[in-house]
Amino acid sequence: MGDPVSFMARPSGVGSARLGRLETPHGGIDTPQFMPVGTQATVKSLSPADLRASGAQVILGNTYHLALRPGAERIARLGGLHRFMAWDGPILTDSGGFQVFSLGHLARVDDDGVTFASHIDGSPHRLSPERSLEIQALLGSDIAMAFDQLIDPTRAPGQVEAAMERTHRWAERSLSARSGAEQALFGIVQGGIDPVLRQRSAATIAALPFDGIAIGGLSVGESKEAMASTLEVVAAALGDDPRPRYLMGVGSPLDFFPAVERGIDLFDCVLPTRVARNGQLWTSAGKLNLRNARFLDDPRPADPHCGCETCRTHSRAYLAHLFRAGELLAYRLATLHNVTYTLTLMRQIRASLADRSFASLRDAVEARYGVVGSGEKPPLTAR
Amino acid sequence: MGDPVSFMARPSGVGSARLGRLETPHGGIDTPQFMPVGTQATVKSLSPADLRASGAQVILGNTYHLALRPGAERIARLGGLHRFMAWDGPILTDSGGFQVFSLGHLARVDDDGVTFASHIDGSPHRLSPERSLEIQALLGSDIAMAFDQLIDPTRAPGQVEAAMERTHRWAERSLSARSGAEQALFGIVQGGIDPVLRQRSAATIAALPFDGIAIGGLSVGESKEAMASTLEVVAAALGDDPRPRYLMGVGSPLDFFPAVERGIDLFDCVLPTRVARNGQLWTSAGKLNLRNARFLDDPRPADPHCGCETCRTHSRAYLAHLFRAGELLAYRLATLHNVTYTLTLMRQIRASLADRSFASLRDAVEARYGVVGSGEKPPLTAR
Repeated sequence: MGDPVSFMARPSGVGSARLGRLETPHGGIDTPQFMPVGTQATVKSLSPADLRASGAQVILGNTYHLALRPGAERIARLGGLHRFMAWDGPILTDSGGFQVFSLGHLARVDDDGVTFASHIDGSPHRLSPERSLEIQALLGSDIAMAFDQLIDPTRAPGQVEAAMERTHRWAERSLSARSGAEQALFGIVQGGIDPVLRQRSAATIAALPFDGIAIGGLSVGESKEAMASTLEVVAAALGDDPRPRYLMGVGSPLDFFPAVERGIDLFDCVLPTRVARNGQLWTSAGKLNLRNARFLDDPRPADPHCGCETCRTHSRAYLAHLFRAGELLAYRLATLHNVTYTLTLMRQIRASLADRSFASLRDAVEARYGVVGSGEKPPLTAR
Repeated sequence: MGDPVSFMARPSGVGSARLGRLETPHGGIDTPQFMPVGTQATVKSLSPADLRASGAQVILGNTYHLALRPGAERIARLGGLHRFMAWDGPILTDSGGFQVFSLGHLARVDDDGVTFASHIDGSPHRLSPERSLEIQALLGSDIAMAFDQLIDPTRAPGQVEAAMERTHRWAERSLSARSGAEQALFGIVQGGIDPVLRQRSAATIAALPFDGIAIGGLSVGESKEAMASTLEVVAAALGDDPRPRYLMGVGSPLDFFPAVERGIDLFDCVLPTRVARNGQLWTSAGKLNLRNARFLDDPRPADPHCGCETCRTHSRAYLAHLFRAGELLAYRLATLHNVTYTLTLMRQIRASLADRSFASLRDAVEARYGVVGSGEKPPLTAR
């Protein structure tokens, strides 16, 4: 039985940052890399052709959403998630653990799994490590995630530790339930922002035969400093472990740099697409809020340095008009730009690691986006 | 001063149907032709590239909407409507007359014009033939429309006649107010469904030096038979007048045929785009309602005979899922298909006029869409 994915990475000389390439059954991924989120079998407002044009190499699908609607068995009958959504590149599916707790109603956790009510119609459902892996096998993603328990890191230390221990037990059960040679499986490090717990969790997950290691439970309201120090604890615990490392739910221009420096290879976040739908564009000059009235008379492209269809074709004035008029085209044009911006930034980060210009790229982005923190972190809700 | 547009049409031998070509400053239009409606400087959910891919040769812009938001003077400062919306093909703008009465609040008509309150914010506005033509000149459309008075054709005959007479006076004032050599101006025949009034209006408008003749006030609730007989009265009154004829606000698969047979060259309607956003697709097999649960498991394309991106790429199951999930991509994919279908049907109609297979094409479409009437006529509201 061959490995479903292979990963080659070399140290960049910049902190713990690595430059790598992850090969999957549906194609290769240059790392560090960002994965746009295709929650309900679509990256909101974008077509597969749009995604390709944006430079996307891999996207994320949500087990919780897809299991509820249209249903994993249905997607399997229709040929799997790639065929269903007409995306022939790599797909990573999350385990549903995050959404069960953040979106599902009345979630009750026991050692076997989680019972919850659908946020769509209130119908009762149950997820467990075994069912999560079964769903992900039905979806046919290239990379599946172990089923973990999300917990607010500000809870009592005993509760955070108990959730982490349960996540470790579920990690072993996820491994036992994995489907086969065609799907990789990543484990998830938990432990809140407690360095002792994080160290223990990283060592525990790294000792298991996962194909990659994810860091969960961050970007849920903790400070930038707490995130960075937690990533350092995990990086130290993982040492020179050669497997890909995935920081879940993180993806703003400011957040990439400290994470890449601490060895992160993969990111995902709804932020670029969500803020786009609210009219916030990320540009080489910083944030641009298209709902600001002054843009109604601005004939320039959103970002003159961007090559996306939006910036090649349309003015800020037109985009600002579309947002004011509530026109559907606004959401697509803004999303296409923000995804392109984010993936271009990741490409620039990779290039800066190769030619040792990472620090100056980081400083330039921090100068444009504000070093103190963007205030654009997603709340502890759906992604 | 050269003519802003030129039109060459030849009788097809099928009733009064003609095959023609309308040349405008932004390109040529094969007739009979359908114009997708770009209400607020966008055909809802479609990009300019989507429109080109759908086969669109000309689109319609709405003077009322654009004057209120973002404002005609603003669009002029930004280089005109073509540049503003990045559509470099021909544009026809309506006069605002229809929307003032159907969308504006508290519309009060006098001989000079109409005072009304914006449907967006209640602010007071006034439109007159002169202001309508000024706005259309600011927008820079290839074809402008004379300012007319809309009236419910079921009103008392005296009221319908008075509105028609006012439309005739406004037609002359529209001609006096026209801008110059670069913009064509079409007059509008009114008169409700009264054959005497329609005959008089057609003769009056045809006697004026318009570049084209439009038929307004139809598709507002009258029967198919009333529309057809009214078109016949107008066709008889126009005789072999060589100018293009435009039936305003009409555009369903069943409505094209009787109108083409009665000499209509141009159509516009929000129907293909509006029903698409409700999940109704027009296909070579008839209507397909994607909200029907049975499509959730249907792996076939919406229309196997259609070459649009939607049908080339996606299954009915995926489209049905997107509609159920309320995903933005649903609206674009459905709209792209319906516009492509409508423009393909117009191309088939032109080909059928050329090779005398019009009757069999009409019979085939009527068999699929129901000869009795589609029930999909737009209400007397916005277009």
